[in-house]
Amino acid sequence: MIKNIVILGAGKVASALALALYHADITIIQIYSKTFEHAQHLAEKVGAVAVSEPDRISQQADLYLISVNDSVIKQVAELKALQNKLVAHTAGSIPLSILNQYTTHAGVFYPLQTFSEGRMVNMAEVPFCIESAQSSDYGKLESLARKISTKVYRVNSEQRLRLHLSAVFANNFGNHMFALAFELLKEYQLPFDMLRPLITETAAKLQEMLPSEAQTGPAVRGDLNTIKSHLELLQDKSEMQKIYTFVSESIEELACSTKNKHKN
Amino acid sequence: MIKNIVILGAGKVASALALALYHADITIIQIYSKTFEHAQHLAEKVGAVAVSEPDRISQQADLYLISVNDSVIKQVAELKALQNKLVAHTAGSIPLSILNQYTTHAGVFYPLQTFSEGRMVNMAEVPFCIESAQSSDYGKLESLARKISTKVYRVNSEQRLRLHLSAVFANNFGNHMFALAFELLKEYQLPFDMLRPLITETAAKLQEMLPSEAQTGPAVRGDLNTIKSHLELLQDKSEMQKIYTFVSESIEELACSTKNKHKN
Repeated sequence: MIKNIVILGAGKVASALALALYHADITIIQIYSKTFEHAQHLAEKVGAVAVSEPDRISQQADLYLISVNDSVIKQVAELKALQNKLVAHTAGSIPLSILNQYTTHAGVFYPLQTFSEGRMVNMAEVPFCIESAQSSDYGKLESLARKISTKVYRVNSEQRLRLHLSAVFANNFGNHMFALAFELLKEYQLPFDMLRPLITETAAKLQEMLPSEAQTGPAVRGDLNTIKSHLELLQDKSEMQKIYTFVSESIEELACSTKNKHKN
Repeated sequence: MIKNIVILGAGKVASALALALYHADITIIQIYSKTFEHAQHLAEKVGAVAVSEPDRISQQADLYLISVNDSVIKQVAELKALQNKLVAHTAGSIPLSILNQYTTHAGVFYPLQTFSEGRMVNMAEVPFCIESAQSSDYGKLESLARKISTKVYRVNSEQRLRLHLSAVFANNFGNHMFALAFELLKEYQLPFDMLRPLITETAAKLQEMLPSEAQTGPAVRGDLNTIKSHLELLQDKSEMQKIYTFVSESIEELACSTKNKHKN
């Protein structure tokens, strides 16, 4: 059973995980970050010791959780203290195998959620995607995840990459559509507050419906007059016009293929 | 004061408005629809009489609310019973002036929300956009809106079209990004439930943050490795690849322009 953890990283994901684990009575021995202040800032909140020198990383942890930018996972994994320990990273699109050359006990502990500074997420609802090189490690990582979330899935590296791609569409691209809406409102000097209830309802619908059932608006209705007047409004914004056109076409196509499937 | 209403239309928006007004103790005298069954279905729920013959439309209403597809607003507005009455439509992208040739008391009563069959929306949170040809009618429409919502705005036709365009980006295009995510998950045989908490959080963040602050993911980080592996996964899906590329570029551009503005 995993009782003592060293967390390597002090960013948004590391912080969210550290806090959730701490509140689930897991001991966070140390927070490691190259920047001592970052380590200290998080360590204070979770009763841990801040460490920025690799030599001072404890050898006694049951798990070394690497929660850093994808591009530096390797650099952290090769730290001496982690050699052949149970080491898991928290990244969506990095294969488990990135850790194989440093330990025989590699794992993945990936929370499928968007984390922002200063915002608490309800971790109990966050799907955790677990993977391990040794089957004997799977149960340990799964139990740990179950201490903080009710939604734990066994997901291999290939599935996880695909899940992460889907999450990019849903979260990053969804958010960007909201961002473009905001840019338009700003230009038109209309308050963003006017769209907030719509954004809430857009997401709320999908808790009980599928996106194809929830879709409304000119593209899915094939309402060419409205589409035309929208494109005219965007005539001096070629980027937005391009996105408007491609996304509208994609909405129509998806609606047609969904209809045809129902017919068959 | 508006006490008695005839609602022309029996679709999703008409139904949502009829129910909200009915529960706010407004009398819905009649529901008019060319298809009697549609009128009757809604009329039963709001204590109204169903009407499908234009000659039987009451002349006694304080307001004639036209809530039909944009393309048939004119056909309904020219019905004899509505001549020179207080007539308002509920459309986002149709100017008030479409009603001018039929009445001197034209108005707009536009709820900025997405409505789906069988789904109750919290109307008190829905922004209502009100406009009127006669300034004396504005107060009447505004008071009516205030009976069902706490968010009432004076919005002219030009602003409303822009608001509607923004809403298309936020709701329709946002929903479509969720739809594409769902298509990917389906192909990969992963459950949509795995993305639902992410979708909830994507919207929840924006109740207190701006979309530019809320953005995360590979595009805003400039994480080219992840973008590359995502595009490889999409190599047999040219439409999705195109959307991935354009939206990622647009995310990067917006992030740069936001940063530059902060510098200045």
